[in-house]
Amino acid sequence: MSEKKRVSETRVRVRYAETDQMGVVYYANYLVWMEVGRVELCKACGFNYRDMEKEDGIYLEVAESHCRYRAPAHYDDEVVVKTWIELANLRTVTFAYEMRLAATDRRLATGTTRHVYVSRAMKPTQLPRKYHAMLGLAEPKV
Amino acid sequence: MSEKKRVSETRVRVRYAETDQMGVVYYANYLVWMEVGRVELCKACGFNYRDMEKEDGIYLEVAESHCRYRAPAHYDDEVVVKTWIELANLRTVTFAYEMRLAATDRRLATGTTRHVYVSRAMKPTQLPRKYHAMLGLAEPKV
Amino acid sequence: MSEKKRVSETRVRVRYAETDQMGVVYYANYLVWMEVGRVELCKACGFNYRDMEKEDGIYLEVAESHCRYRAPAHYDDEVVVKTWIELANLRTVTFAYEMRLAATDRRLATGTTRHVYVSRAMKPTQLPRKYHAMLGLAEPKV
Amino acid sequence: MSEKKRVSETRVRVRYAETDQMGVVYYANYLVWMEVGRVELCKACGFNYRDMEKEDGIYLEVAESHCRYRAPAHYDDEVVVKTWIELANLRTVTFAYEMRLAATDRRLATGTTRHVYVSRAMKPTQLPRKYHAMLGLAEPKV
Repeated sequence: MSEKKRVSETRVRVRYAETDQMGVVYYANYLVWMEVGRVELCKACGFNYRDMEKEDGIYLEVAESHCRYRAPAHYDDEVVVKTWIELANLRTVTFAYEMRLAATDRRLATGTTRHVYVSRAMKPTQLPRKYHAMLGLAEPKV
Repeated sequence: MSEKKRVSETRVRVRYAETDQMGVVYYANYLVWMEVGRVELCKACGFNYRDMEKEDGIYLEVAESHCRYRAPAHYDDEVVVKTWIELANLRTVTFAYEMRLAATDRRLATGTTRHVYVSRAMKPTQLPRKYHAMLGLAEPKV
Repeated sequence: MSEKKRVSETRVRVRYAETDQMGVVYYANYLVWMEVGRVELCKACGFNYRDMEKEDGIYLEVAESHCRYRAPAHYDDEVVVKTWIELANLRTVTFAYEMRLAATDRRLATGTTRHVYVSRAMKPTQLPRKYHAMLGLAEPKV
Repeated sequence: MSEKKRVSETRVRVRYAETDQMGVVYYANYLVWMEVGRVELCKACGFNYRDMEKEDGIYLEVAESHCRYRAPAHYDDEVVVKTWIELANLRTVTFAYEMRLAATDRRLATGTTRHVYVSRAMKPTQLPRKYHAMLGLAEPKV
């Protein structure tokens, strides 16, 4: 995590629904927590993802996901989800995540998701200028 | 189950994702199987629910759900979902469900869901005439 | 809601994962929120449901669920889940729920879930004495 | 896909529950389909994963997941999930997946999951000999 990067932090409490018969959190649910994390990061960056969709018709279509599961999370655990932007440009943005157990700071999982900006019709599109600074895009040189 | 009613039958295999740490299927997932059942019933009645939404802009908004859990379902069980229409009129339709273990015919759950027809804008609307016979609505007397 | 009843209140933020293509929360997810609500109620009553399972081997098996969907919840909405005990005895407990939109207090859904106490082997069992007062069971008369 | 590898093929029908408000399948659900795929592959290899857990106390704990989303899946689509073993040894197994739209053969997603064998107590363990041939482990040279 670069010191310059804005890192958002949010917490989720493990739901019974999220466990499986192994007694731990089912692996797909970490991707749901990543979604919770990136929504919070958007808020920390100055906008609601909800409004980005509604008002600007810009959607973050997922192109790739990756997760390393390092220690299992259990029912009723409080999990800290840290999220930051690893890379952003006019066409794509990559979020990185780290999930830790609140009680012990044990690292549970790390991962990334890569997204492309698409229009309502799901066609690739450029990120509108108003979001450039918020997502940390460098200003083009003159 | 009235003999006159059309009853559709479909099967689902319990997914690991659907279990919880009690080692059985998490209770909300029965409502997902009900959805699978009513889509199959629509097909048995002569239409795709998908097309009803896409082509006619008619959505089945859920107004009420009820489920009795009679015996737990386990991972990898094959479950038979029977679905039929309990009541249908111009404004609303109620589906009934029975879920049984395929291997032993043991009854796992029974339930109902009540729906209202809504437009794309989610306003209550009447069921278009083309669906009347398919959903078993009685012809109005002259 | 009786004035005497302990009512717990917790909040959930609607996740993207919980929406469906109708643009609203998928109906089975209200049952997940009910689960979040009753865990919070247990805490308000003085115990963790997690410990009840782990330490006492008592599980709340769901026997019945009912939900009335009154207004749709949308992505990123904050929802207040109120939970209270409608009925509790030595064999069974019924929780009642009310979900409202935090922003406007609009009622989204109401419902109940009925549970039986079961052992680790999923056999019906009596509620241990230590939980009687916490779940509001009346003391037997001498 | 090596010609020598056993490839299992199974089909899932997209559920309404699996869509999100973007009108496509929510990205975490592809990991659920991968799970469906690897269970089928186990069956094709000659054993039930269910029995591996129950009878031998061997669990496939997920250590890593990766998914490339290439084209969106929609409600009611039939999806073909192909699964094969990319790598297996005494400690770990990596499954690979390809998901295609049944109607057009369009590739929707590809991915991998890496697992370690763990005991009931979730301690890393070796794969029992009876599974070696079924998972394609090479016989050790004498």
